[in-house]
Amino acid sequence: MSDDHEQGVVLAPKFDAAGLITAVVTDAADGTVLMVAHMNAAALALTRSTGEAHFWSRSRGRLWKKGETSGNILRVVDMRIDCDQDAIWLQANAAGPACHTGERSCFYRRIDGDGLVRD
Amino acid sequence: MSDDHEQGVVLAPKFDAAGLITAVVTDAADGTVLMVAHMNAAALALTRSTGEAHFWSRSRGRLWKKGETSGNILRVVDMRIDCDQDAIWLQANAAGPACHTGERSCFYRRIDGDGLVRD
Repeated sequence: MSDDHEQGVVLAPKFDAAGLITAVVTDAADGTVLMVAHMNAAALALTRSTGEAHFWSRSRGRLWKKGETSGNILRVVDMRIDCDQDAIWLQANAAGPACHTGERSCFYRRIDGDGLVRD
Repeated sequence: MSDDHEQGVVLAPKFDAAGLITAVVTDAADGTVLMVAHMNAAALALTRSTGEAHFWSRSRGRLWKKGETSGNILRVVDMRIDCDQDAIWLQANAAGPACHTGERSCFYRRIDGDGLVRD
């Protein structure tokens, strides 16, 4: 967490030991957190060059364009990086539900007492 | 990523190999992503019991109440978990700047071309 990382104007993402950085996607319209995923350098580069969110799927072990099969792409309107450059925030317009369950957001359950509530 | 994790009403966070889960904090007022940090089981339990955000500091290797020295606590108003229960979203009211740099949000730089812009 150097000054260069925090104060600089050079994009220098700190990928973790697996080569990944955390990416948070919010809906550009209302700020709802739609999903949290991971990017490797290639996913980040493709997201920047195409304006559509790409990720690295840890479960499938491959690069993945969000919506490549469902059509529910995420069109990026703003992309930010945090102070120590180990997390990325995308604001996006979603073509459809962001969650593979069909929910609009992956965060469809609220933590309530000892359990979860859908609301 | 079992059905139990996705459809159930049981809180069963999937901590990673280091015992951590990713936590995203947004400002309850306007949806700005304030910070991305990590929680271990103790930080999650304390956040739930006190209503104030606690994290695990990977750099310092200890439990950490946000604002414990600065006073800039994060008062949680809503807490959600994602489909596969490996990320948490907190909506919070911030008592002051969330970033240790003094910025309101850790995401004070936008990715623009090959560089970063403060805005």
